[in-house]
Amino acid sequence: MALIVQKFGGSSVKDAKHVMNVAKIVTGTYSAGNDVVVVVSAQGNTTDDLVSKAKEINPTPSSREMDMLMAAGEQISIALLAMAIEKLGFPAISLLGWQAGFATNSVYSSARIKFVKPDRIRSEIGKKNIVIVAGFQGTNKYDDVTTLGRGGSDTSAVAIAAALRADRCQIFTDVDGIYTADPRKIPTARKLDEITYDEMLELATLGAQVLNNRSVEMAKKYGIELEVLSSYKGIPGTIVKEVTKMEKMLVRGVTKDTDVARITIMDVPDVPGIAFKVFSRLAAKKINVDIILQSVGRDGNKDIAFTINKSSKEAAIDALSNSFSELENSKINCDTNVAKVSVVGAGMESHPGTAAKMFEALYEIDVNIQMISTSEIKISVLIDLEDADRAVHAIHRAFLPEQ
Amino acid sequence: MALIVQKFGGSSVKDAKHVMNVAKIVTGTYSAGNDVVVVVSAQGNTTDDLVSKAKEINPTPSSREMDMLMAAGEQISIALLAMAIEKLGFPAISLLGWQAGFATNSVYSSARIKFVKPDRIRSEIGKKNIVIVAGFQGTNKYDDVTTLGRGGSDTSAVAIAAALRADRCQIFTDVDGIYTADPRKIPTARKLDEITYDEMLELATLGAQVLNNRSVEMAKKYGIELEVLSSYKGIPGTIVKEVTKMEKMLVRGVTKDTDVARITIMDVPDVPGIAFKVFSRLAAKKINVDIILQSVGRDGNKDIAFTINKSSKEAAIDALSNSFSELENSKINCDTNVAKVSVVGAGMESHPGTAAKMFEALYEIDVNIQMISTSEIKISVLIDLEDADRAVHAIHRAFLPEQ
Repeated sequence: MALIVQKFGGSSVKDAKHVMNVAKIVTGTYSAGNDVVVVVSAQGNTTDDLVSKAKEINPTPSSREMDMLMAAGEQISIALLAMAIEKLGFPAISLLGWQAGFATNSVYSSARIKFVKPDRIRSEIGKKNIVIVAGFQGTNKYDDVTTLGRGGSDTSAVAIAAALRADRCQIFTDVDGIYTADPRKIPTARKLDEITYDEMLELATLGAQVLNNRSVEMAKKYGIELEVLSSYKGIPGTIVKEVTKMEKMLVRGVTKDTDVARITIMDVPDVPGIAFKVFSRLAAKKINVDIILQSVGRDGNKDIAFTINKSSKEAAIDALSNSFSELENSKINCDTNVAKVSVVGAGMESHPGTAAKMFEALYEIDVNIQMISTSEIKISVLIDLEDADRAVHAIHRAFLPEQ
Repeated sequence: MALIVQKFGGSSVKDAKHVMNVAKIVTGTYSAGNDVVVVVSAQGNTTDDLVSKAKEINPTPSSREMDMLMAAGEQISIALLAMAIEKLGFPAISLLGWQAGFATNSVYSSARIKFVKPDRIRSEIGKKNIVIVAGFQGTNKYDDVTTLGRGGSDTSAVAIAAALRADRCQIFTDVDGIYTADPRKIPTARKLDEITYDEMLELATLGAQVLNNRSVEMAKKYGIELEVLSSYKGIPGTIVKEVTKMEKMLVRGVTKDTDVARITIMDVPDVPGIAFKVFSRLAAKKINVDIILQSVGRDGNKDIAFTINKSSKEAAIDALSNSFSELENSKINCDTNVAKVSVVGAGMESHPGTAAKMFEALYEIDVNIQMISTSEIKISVLIDLEDADRAVHAIHRAFLPEQ
């Protein structure tokens, strides 16, 4: 007998049929002799419906009232799931964020969980109830309703699993696990049985948005074993944990991120302090910078290039234009016709040839590399957008040949 | 400066336009220098939508989960109203039942308010916020969400007004006050400036469903002055209070109730204990009996007739059929082709001629009276359904002639 936390996203409970499907998964786990705590998001389109109701009345509502509104979404889905489980003849009880003991800070719309006080959940488990908890929401010290922001329900599930010292936290999604590449694009992509937290974090950052990063970070911190699996297929998914069987696999995945812009500042005076000034101005605007490249100075000038998320393009140009005297004679150039392709794998730390192998694969298909960035478990390159898909294929073939 | 509680029903907040209209009324009251607490029901069709979502999954959900589901309705409307008030540039804060301090018993779906602990509301008033409270909901001693059942938002408003010792509790509706008869049917019907709690209770019982009875009873108990007024017209409504200026008006209203059935048990043995047996069996099935008539015994037999709500017809016949030996040779007859017409007015206590005047009005238009029931402030007659409208006209003309 184990204590299992199961999380279902909005598309998994989008209508009566889907809610019943979730009820069957949950009661199946319960019938097998496990204690089950379920975390649910708002139904499919409820969130969008509530947002449009709000915008019709006030395009800029206070975030406190927005959270009050949005939290109604999970309230509906937890009650419906409890009814579905009752219908199947099993005992169920639904709990809102505040009832389940979710204490957050007061940053409405993207609150962070401070702690979970799971007394009520424990008592309901003790009564043999299947406990259904509203994801994405909590209350702050004023007893006001808060929401956790994007991906919050994953974080809710991991936080409960940590507070209850659950044996496993299962994240049910539309896909059946973590793949070495996007299986819709790369037919030879393989589902991984296991992956480490760090690899998962790199993959998520790089665009494989199966698991929210905050939830993976929290799972790592508390040592919660995560499983990413399908709501529909009934087969094992991918386990995310600290140490995995390496399967002699250098690389765990190849990803592509097309949501990138490259900014180049040309002809910057080659004097100390320039980089500091540029990047502190970007930081002040809360613009995340990814790869940074600085050319070697020549004729007293140099170039600085960096990549950012496409959506920050205007803000970045704005932050740098006419901002300080050293850039007076510089030219700022922005290119959104680029993609970042990366390989991720804890195995590569100890294999110095990984980068070379990746570059070779790109050379063979005649792809030019504009920028390079490496970490212990990741190598990323910036290339032309039009080369991205070919590049992923070639790299996947090089590291993960068909079995 | 006064403290005013304002309550708006579901049709008053049914869409963005209506929510903005309510926001204008509320901020108008606030701008005039008053502290304002607003109680809101769920938006128009939200309640029906949520019920059908539930029924699709489970036709007989537990009432605890049903309350959890339904309570999301007011959560949406309070947040939207707060946003509308913010949009008009006024400070607002929305509070759920539990945040506003509504403690109820544990009868899910028709919970009763045990007390309101208005600390949070007071503190928000102190901060000069317009406080918007979710009607219809509270929490029980287990910290579970409960709903108050039909008309519950009126009761919520009166309970808050009592807990805050508010100067007035305004109930905004689709009509602009309490009339001496249904103004759509009786063109000479007059709006009353004032009416007593007891008169209001009789009128509500008799089918003039403007105010929920529980809320009037609570207002009477705590001496809360109620005002029933229109959400749209911006004119004074009808004040409901303990003692009113009598305006030399004998009768406050004429009402008709067509939701009545008359059950007759014919040829009951004329022996002691029969009435007790009949009505205790009905009571055991929770069937409310209204008018009772027992014929004088003849040939050792008598008839017992009584009226009930139409919806209890089958249950009543069922409770009496083959129930005890004395009814063996009796015949049970049910007539739904009847209506109850009543006059209500505290003035009639001291005017012995009221009943006679009413009967005369009916005689003049040739309406036969089947049953009669009287209380200190009410006279009701049971007549043929087809005579009901004519009867209301004639009685209204007799007591409340055109001015």
